[in-house]
Amino acid sequence: MSQAAEFHNLDTPVGGIPRELAPGLTTQIFPGEGAMLSIVTIAPNAAGTLHAHPEEQWGVLLDGSAVRVQGGEEIPVKKGDFWRTPGGVPHTMRAGPEGARVLDIFSPPRPEYRVAGKGFGTG
Amino acid sequence: MSQAAEFHNLDTPVGGIPRELAPGLTTQIFPGEGAMLSIVTIAPNAAGTLHAHPEEQWGVLLDGSAVRVQGGEEIPVKKGDFWRTPGGVPHTMRAGPEGARVLDIFSPPRPEYRVAGKGFGTG
Repeated sequence: MSQAAEFHNLDTPVGGIPRELAPGLTTQIFPGEGAMLSIVTIAPNAAGTLHAHPEEQWGVLLDGSAVRVQGGEEIPVKKGDFWRTPGGVPHTMRAGPEGARVLDIFSPPRPEYRVAGKGFGTG
Repeated sequence: MSQAAEFHNLDTPVGGIPRELAPGLTTQIFPGEGAMLSIVTIAPNAAGTLHAHPEEQWGVLLDGSAVRVQGGEEIPVKKGDFWRTPGGVPHTMRAGPEGARVLDIFSPPRPEYRVAGKGFGTG
């Protein structure tokens, strides 16, 4: 297989596994062996629900603005901000009035996200 | 510890571990438990050397243009492109005339990059 199959684009994430995390939060998921990338689009003022999972997570704010809710704190984030969420720490995002786009990285990959579906996969 | 300590910015990567990968390639490294993020700046027309490591790697082109050399193929990448490099596959980058900035993600973290230093840590 050509290495070209491993190349994608954040703005046109063709070939990802689609998931609706919550109303107004959709994502395209690209699983690897060590990590899994998820390109999340959050509608203006939409928010996820607080959840936690054992896998470590990193996030990068690609566009827009948002508040990261993590470990009981609310931290405003702007384009270019990135953060680590240790495994087991409850978290969610709330987009600003222009919405937000986030690159999430799970390591190891979250098994719940290997198939198309709905929700945060945390029961 | 406040969760705020887990938040950083791609454009001002304060608090990373500095490394000079090769002449014209510098990085700031942020290690986690499952993954390690590395924000690489490549000078115009600079290139790394071909190397490989067992850890999976993902890359995101943040700015500029470059050619990704991977598994014997040369694949031009533009801003917003991202790619997976399976463990063990030889790879490097060559920046275009305006240079490039890349977010590299290693999973699991590369132990060689947990300390400041020089080189790709592949002996």
